[in-house]
Order: sequence, then C-alpha cells, then structure tokens
Amino acid sequence: MKIVVDAMGGDYAPQAVIEGVILALKEFDVDIILVGIEDRIKEELAKYEYPKERLEIVHASEVVDMHDAAITPVRKKRDSSITVGTNLIKNKKADAFISAGNTGAMVAASTLLLGMMPGVERPAIGIVYPTLKGFSFLIDVGANTEPKPEHLLQSGLMAKVYVREVLGVSNPSVGLLNIGEESSKGGGFAKDAFKLMEEKIENFTGNVEANEVFTGKADCIISDGFVGNIVIKVSEGLMESMSKLLKREIKKSPMAILGVTFMLPTLNRVKKVADYSEYGGAPLLGVNGLVMISHGRSSPKAIKNAIRATIKEIEHNIIEVMEKEIKK
Amino acid sequence: MKIVVDAMGGDYAPQAVIEGVILALKEFDVDIILVGIEDRIKEELAKYEYPKERLEIVHASEVVDMHDAAITPVRKKRDSSITVGTNLIKNKKADAFISAGNTGAMVAASTLLLGMMPGVERPAIGIVYPTLKGFSFLIDVGANTEPKPEHLLQSGLMAKVYVREVLGVSNPSVGLLNIGEESSKGGGFAKDAFKLMEEKIENFTGNVEANEVFTGKADCIISDGFVGNIVIKVSEGLMESMSKLLKREIKKSPMAILGVTFMLPTLNRVKKVADYSEYGGAPLLGVNGLVMISHGRSSPKAIKNAIRATIKEIEHNIIEVMEKEIKK
Repeated sequence: MKIVVDAMGGDYAPQAVIEGVILALKEFDVDIILVGIEDRIKEELAKYEYPKERLEIVHASEVVDMHDAAITPVRKKRDSSITVGTNLIKNKKADAFISAGNTGAMVAASTLLLGMMPGVERPAIGIVYPTLKGFSFLIDVGANTEPKPEHLLQSGLMAKVYVREVLGVSNPSVGLLNIGEESSKGGGFAKDAFKLMEEKIENFTGNVEANEVFTGKADCIISDGFVGNIVIKVSEGLMESMSKLLKREIKKSPMAILGVTFMLPTLNRVKKVADYSEYGGAPLLGVNGLVMISHGRSSPKAIKNAIRATIKEIEHNIIEVMEKEIKK
Repeated sequence: MKIVVDAMGGDYAPQAVIEGVILALKEFDVDIILVGIEDRIKEELAKYEYPKERLEIVHASEVVDMHDAAITPVRKKRDSSITVGTNLIKNKKADAFISAGNTGAMVAASTLLLGMMPGVERPAIGIVYPTLKGFSFLIDVGANTEPKPEHLLQSGLMAKVYVREVLGVSNPSVGLLNIGEESSKGGGFAKDAFKLMEEKIENFTGNVEANEVFTGKADCIISDGFVGNIVIKVSEGLMESMSKLLKREIKKSPMAILGVTFMLPTLNRVKKVADYSEYGGAPLLGVNGLVMISHGRSSPKAIKNAIRATIKEIEHNIIEVMEKEIKK
C-alpha cells in the first residue's frame, strides 16, 4: 500500500506535513511518497529518524499557492506537487493522494486528470466532524456550489459507503440539510433532492435542520457545496469568536483565571472532542481515485490522521464499493 | 405611538409575551394593543399592576400554530391574532406589529395584506446579533429562500438604513455572505449580486466569508434566506451542543465543578453578550408596514427588547427613509 503526500501543501508546509508523515510511518504499515521540491523535503527529513525503505521522494519543481486559480495545476504549473501527485495515482504508481494545499486546485486537478467514477457526475468533499453522539459526515463542503438534485443523491449514496466502510457505522442514516423538517420545506431544488433521496437511499431519514447538525441526528448530512461550506466556516468562526470573547472576559477577573486552571483537564478533553484534526482529512468523493484534502492549517497530527483514514479507504476498496452502490 | 403585540405567538405565549409587554409599559413611553383570545389575555393581565390607560385588548378568536401552513392567516384562520394584528396596522389603527408566532405565516400575512413597499420586490428578515466588535445585522434569515440578485441589493439598501437609524451606526458597511473573499467566488448568483451591490451600495466592502460572520467584519451581512437561515440555526445548534458537551464533561470532575463556580460571574457576562434576546426581535423588511418577528422561544426580556427596537423604527420613520434610499 502506497500513499502520495503533498509535501508543499498547507499553511505550515513542508514542516507540519513531513512531521505528520514521520508519525504515520512509525504508527502504520504503509509506504509513503512525498511529492514536492526535493531539496526542501530532504532538509526537513534530515531532522528525523524513520524507516527509510518506506519513504520515497518524487520531485516537483512548482508549488500551487492559496491564491492560485483552481485551474493552475492543469494549465500553468504542470510540474507542481498537486499535478505530479495526482498523476502518480492516475498512473497507478500509488493508491491515494493527500494534500493540505489549495482546495479548488485539488478539486480541479482531480476532476480533470482522474475523471469521474462511473455513475457520478460531480465531485463532492465530505468531512467527518464531532457531534454529541460521536461523529457525522457532512458532504459537500465546497466542491460543487451549484449542484443539481441528482448530484445530492449521488453524494448521499457515496457518503453511506464512506461512513460504513471507513468509519465503521453499520447502515448509516442519511439526512438532507434543509431549513425545515417537513418534506415541503425549502425551494424547488431541496424538494426535488428530497424526493430522489427518499426513493433511492436506504435509511434516508428526511430533512435535517441546521441546528441539528451537531446533535448527531443523521450519520450522513447531504448539502450543496455552497451551504455546506457556509456550515463549516460559520462553525469554525463561531468557536473562534466565542473562545476569544471568553479569554477577553476571563482576563478581567482573577477569580475566573483561578477557575480556569481548575477546569483545564476538562477543557482539554472537550477540546479534543471538538478538534477536527482528530478525524483526518476531507475525502474528495466522486473522482476516479482516492483523494484526501486536508485542512490548510493541518497539524502533524491532522496529517497523520488523514493518512490513517486513507489507509482504511484503500483497505475497504471504497471506490469499487461506491460504484456498486450507485449502480444498484 | 401604538404597537400591536400578538399575545398568542411563541412557545411561551401568552405568559411570556404579556410579561414582556408589562415590562415595556413600565420602561417605555408607548401604547400597546394586545391581540388574541380576550379571556386568556385578561386572565394573564390580572397577575400584574400596570398603566391600564396605555394597554388595549383586541379580540381574535383563532390562533395560528407552528404547524400551520404559511398561508393559514390569509386563507383559513382569518380571525387569528396574526391576521387581526396585521390588519390593525394596515388600517392605521397602530404603527407596528410584533409577533413571536409562526414565521412563515407572519411573512405571508404581511406580504399579502400589507403589500410591498415601493422599490422592493420581496420581503426579507433581518437579525441583530453579537460580534467581537459589538453587533452586526444579518439579512435575510428565511423570508425569501430563492431570491434574485436584485433582491439581495434591495436587502442591502434596507439593511443600511436599519442599522443606521435603529442601531445608530453611522455609514454602516455592507458585505455579501459568500464562500470566498474574491469577487469571482461563488456561483453566477453570487457574482451577479456582488456586481449590483458594488455598483449601488455606498460602503460595500465585498464578500464576507462565513468564518467572519462573528468577527464584526461588516455591519450588514447580506445573504439569501436559505443560507441566512442555515447560518443562524447552525450557530444556535453549535452553541447548544457545545454547552451540553461542556456540562457533561464538567460533571465528571469535582475540580471542574469548583472551577466553574469561580467563573460564574464571567460566564454570565459572556452569556449576556451572546444572548439574542438582548437585541430584540427580527424586523421583516420590505413590506409596507413595520413588522417584527420575535424568536419562538422569546423570553419576556426578548419581547420587551423587540418593543424597544420597534419604538426606534417608528421614531426614525424607517419605511420612509428606506423608500428614499432605494429610489436614489
């Protein structure tokens, strides 16, 4: 089993990425290809002890940055780590590709270079996130911002397979993110998607309102990419703002500072539950290859966990299983 | 100045509504009409001392409940508190109408009975919410789930007037909620709305990503009603889930319980900042009359604060001012 990791992707690349890869090499039985600027990669690797026979470097002279247009890896920077990494899996030199780089560029490169898997018309990005009951899977969080109802159905079918095979939930429930519970809610798009999903998805549990996203009401929550992106970003932003507000207020009171010190072990436990990096990267589903997009701010632990999730994807042959599920 | 309040609207009606009205009568120089089932209203009022000459009851025999279709007050329950209340302002018997009842029914009754104000094609619901810098105004949070770009422009122009006149912010900034900062982000709808707003709204500051909703990046944030509804509900849900998770973990540790007691004054201060009820109800803008929709779970304080905001709307003649702004 061989996984390509983009050494140049993410806000803390290549340091955080390479540290994460080293952690993964020690913990998992996997071979890794690091793709990116060879000298930079070697410089970082020199800091670590690791099983050298399981790590390979493939040089890519260019880097797609966060401001580059989505089409860049295909049109302009054809020797970028994203392009070279994607082609490695296209040409069967490896089983999967992970990058914490430019999301739009990853979606475009995967879609155009790998093509779509049979039965799926558009790519969709899913994320695993914590809920009161454990975790759920939200898809799409930004690959396809103007989908058709059929694309949501396809996302629903893929999500079910992902959550069953990779997260180990048996017969996952699937809900449609909407602005009301009744099937009559939302505009024409939402109603059409509801009908399709009701008809074709086993264990479809109907609409899920946004205030139920974190309660664990459904194992898979299906949304268009615009709304899904808003959901994850508003959640991220709210947590950050609340934490800033709390810190600002706590600083004003010595009693509160004392109180926080007593609470630290508990707060750290809560933080661990709420920490996205515990749950690995975000799989790009629908393309004809295993692609994982990690958060731009990925820590070494997040990279390691993305590798862990990718190993499960490979072990469970998820593209083949999704294909069968969609053909049914 | 006379404000109609729907005694039967909201999860805790009529108790919470009437308690809020009593608080308002004591605090503000305003006359109130309570509309609803007269006997129930009188029974509640009997609990309080209040300036009787400033409170009137108008009987309405029916109640629109949360499960009724939006069209109910216009088609079926024509003697409901929503219908009677709306007609009171239509017939100039009062200056404004506040209800914590069925949002869809309030939007339909207002739109159909009052009609739209000149220059505005669709209604939009705004809410004032707390940010790290103070507060912002998000519009639309659910009245119009499939708007055209022009409707977003109209919401932007109305929002600017509302925030200036009612919240006292001079030259409020206006941002478009989108999934990226650049003007090229989002689908065709978002791009068209961006262009219109850039051209016609003074102090338009461009796209606001969802993770900036709570930082106070713009005074007014414009969105379609579907996405805006998702934003407020996901925020509500996340806060509730985080608070449940925290409580669950705190209970496991005596140290953490002790810590929380030291922090209580600080936590209450933060809670006050984050409490929507501090900021009054949600104005329904665009209709030809002053209509305020309060949260279904409105507390007496929330009702009182909705009355406070409505008084400002009346004092500042906001419909006339919005009309001028849109004609420009």
